[in-house]
Amino acid sequence: MGERLINFNAGPSILPVPVLEEAARNLVEYGTAGMSIMEMSHRSKEFDAIIQDAEARIRSVIGVPAGYQVMFLQGGASLQFSMLPMNLLGAGQTADYIDTGVWSSTAIKEAKKVGTINVAASSADRKYAYIPKPESFKLTPGAAYVHTTSNNTIYGTQWASAPSFDAPHVCDMSSDICSRPIDMSKYACIYAGAQKNLGPSGVVIVIMRDDLVARSPETLSNMLSYKNHAKKKSLHNTPPTFAIYVVQLVMKWIEAQGGLKGIEQVNEAKAKAIYDAIDRSSGFYRCPADKDSRSKMNIAFRLPSEELEATFISEGKKQAKLHGLKGHRDVGGCRASIYNAMPLAGCETLAKFMDEFAKKNG
Amino acid sequence: MGERLINFNAGPSILPVPVLEEAARNLVEYGTAGMSIMEMSHRSKEFDAIIQDAEARIRSVIGVPAGYQVMFLQGGASLQFSMLPMNLLGAGQTADYIDTGVWSSTAIKEAKKVGTINVAASSADRKYAYIPKPESFKLTPGAAYVHTTSNNTIYGTQWASAPSFDAPHVCDMSSDICSRPIDMSKYACIYAGAQKNLGPSGVVIVIMRDDLVARSPETLSNMLSYKNHAKKKSLHNTPPTFAIYVVQLVMKWIEAQGGLKGIEQVNEAKAKAIYDAIDRSSGFYRCPADKDSRSKMNIAFRLPSEELEATFISEGKKQAKLHGLKGHRDVGGCRASIYNAMPLAGCETLAKFMDEFAKKNG
Repeated sequence: MGERLINFNAGPSILPVPVLEEAARNLVEYGTAGMSIMEMSHRSKEFDAIIQDAEARIRSVIGVPAGYQVMFLQGGASLQFSMLPMNLLGAGQTADYIDTGVWSSTAIKEAKKVGTINVAASSADRKYAYIPKPESFKLTPGAAYVHTTSNNTIYGTQWASAPSFDAPHVCDMSSDICSRPIDMSKYACIYAGAQKNLGPSGVVIVIMRDDLVARSPETLSNMLSYKNHAKKKSLHNTPPTFAIYVVQLVMKWIEAQGGLKGIEQVNEAKAKAIYDAIDRSSGFYRCPADKDSRSKMNIAFRLPSEELEATFISEGKKQAKLHGLKGHRDVGGCRASIYNAMPLAGCETLAKFMDEFAKKNG
Repeated sequence: MGERLINFNAGPSILPVPVLEEAARNLVEYGTAGMSIMEMSHRSKEFDAIIQDAEARIRSVIGVPAGYQVMFLQGGASLQFSMLPMNLLGAGQTADYIDTGVWSSTAIKEAKKVGTINVAASSADRKYAYIPKPESFKLTPGAAYVHTTSNNTIYGTQWASAPSFDAPHVCDMSSDICSRPIDMSKYACIYAGAQKNLGPSGVVIVIMRDDLVARSPETLSNMLSYKNHAKKKSLHNTPPTFAIYVVQLVMKWIEAQGGLKGIEQVNEAKAKAIYDAIDRSSGFYRCPADKDSRSKMNIAFRLPSEELEATFISEGKKQAKLHGLKGHRDVGGCRASIYNAMPLAGCETLAKFMDEFAKKNG
């Protein structure tokens, strides 16, 4: 074994070590089941206990009120971009989308293949450096739903709090689900690919209010129908059993951290450590994101030159085991993704390295 | 650790022990990478090496000629039931389907939601106990494609060899891929959920000839488009990285068994051990499947009564660690799924138990 790196990957990303260790222990044989989890039928009592427990913990940790379905689906958030309008957008209806970055605009592009979409607000005018203000929203009266992206991994912005809409609010929370408490009753649907805060890639969690689930047209393919997946309790076909098991372990770990309140407290301290290093650097580091729109999950920052950025990334790796700090290929620069599993100490190590690097090269 | 059961699950199902052990060893840290495979970016050089190697081994083991794409997708074979007609069936065209069981007829049902389907042959008249003969096929001249299911897990039947069609042949090989050598050039597309012969659930392998890949309409959702997935080398969005890694390990294991020729030899001996026990039981055990249509992957059999079947299953578990022998809920009875990872010794243990049980209860 080498030394564990401080992993700032944007996703798939860092997982809690106790989760990895428990999964490894159970990989060859699950407890005394006489086989691996990967070898178990998805209709066995053992796996039934896993998926039911994973669902119960998600409901309890997030605080999902009655009247919502929790589904474990495949295809990532990207397939949801298509499934949402296929299921929720009736003929003659319009869905409103708020465009805050690459993932929002991809969701819009895919939804436009399916139905009529109104972009109710966009921060594309300033390279997605901010979250649009509610007073700028041009919403459609009677919209089928309003779609937002709670956190923007590439641009490093995040909604500080959930906006309110008359239409059902559907939110892509892939990159900040379970990073802070939310009022689930404000949302008609939240969804998230697991590979940032919930587990490995290969499973996407969709939490959807019953009245939206009921909208699925009967003519839709079974695998694309929320109504079908909800009715079959995510067992229409063989689900990604191992990924769901790891999600169960991650939910247990979140509970052990004091739930979302405990997680939020640490996440606030983690983000503060790095933003403070940026803000005290006298402009050596700068965030493209506006201060009031800064993300607590993905901190995007620039150095004075691309050369210095390359040196920063390579020296950080060599000197302090800092991994995954390169910004997304669309925007360049640097980015620290500090999902739930990143410990405060990792962020403090980064902040210290940033201070030293700025001093040496500023 | 308990004792390892002899796992006849229909899927997810038995995996080779060396594969489980290697995956477990690399779960907390992949080699000296400083992180788990589940924590690696799908665009890292480490994962790139894994997915490229998995693809190369699939090509070499199966013998995929030039001019085919190998894709790692999500949603299981079930989503393929919809994607195939969405991508391959143009307006005004017809696709032919041969109905040999529950999975074929589900594929037909889903395809009918998308376009015009002709059921060219069906063995539903005798409860899917046989594979229809080519002379009975009512094929459509100029069909967009012909769809078959090479092995029928529930009814225990299997095509002895690949039929020939004028139209491109698309085959669901979920339950017997890599169980025997095939002539890939006879197929325009084969696809298989991994959870029987290739790895864990959560990834489906699609091998498709370039001219079929080129058919995807530009208006299709990116996540449902073969053309898009092929162009993006299965990295349009985050793929199920851990599942793909396990597929890589399974392909290495198949190579170590002497490739598909070696695998076939063992599979023949395994199936023979159990069918011999059935055939020498003087009618105590009987196969619903016709002899010339018997599957070498899923052996479905009945005992004289449902009571005896229940006793057989429970005593087999207690006395000989035989697990997963209950037939599919649609048909009842018993079923031994003997995928690649089931060793010959497991089938011999079952055959011996069958002999003794028949002697005692016959």
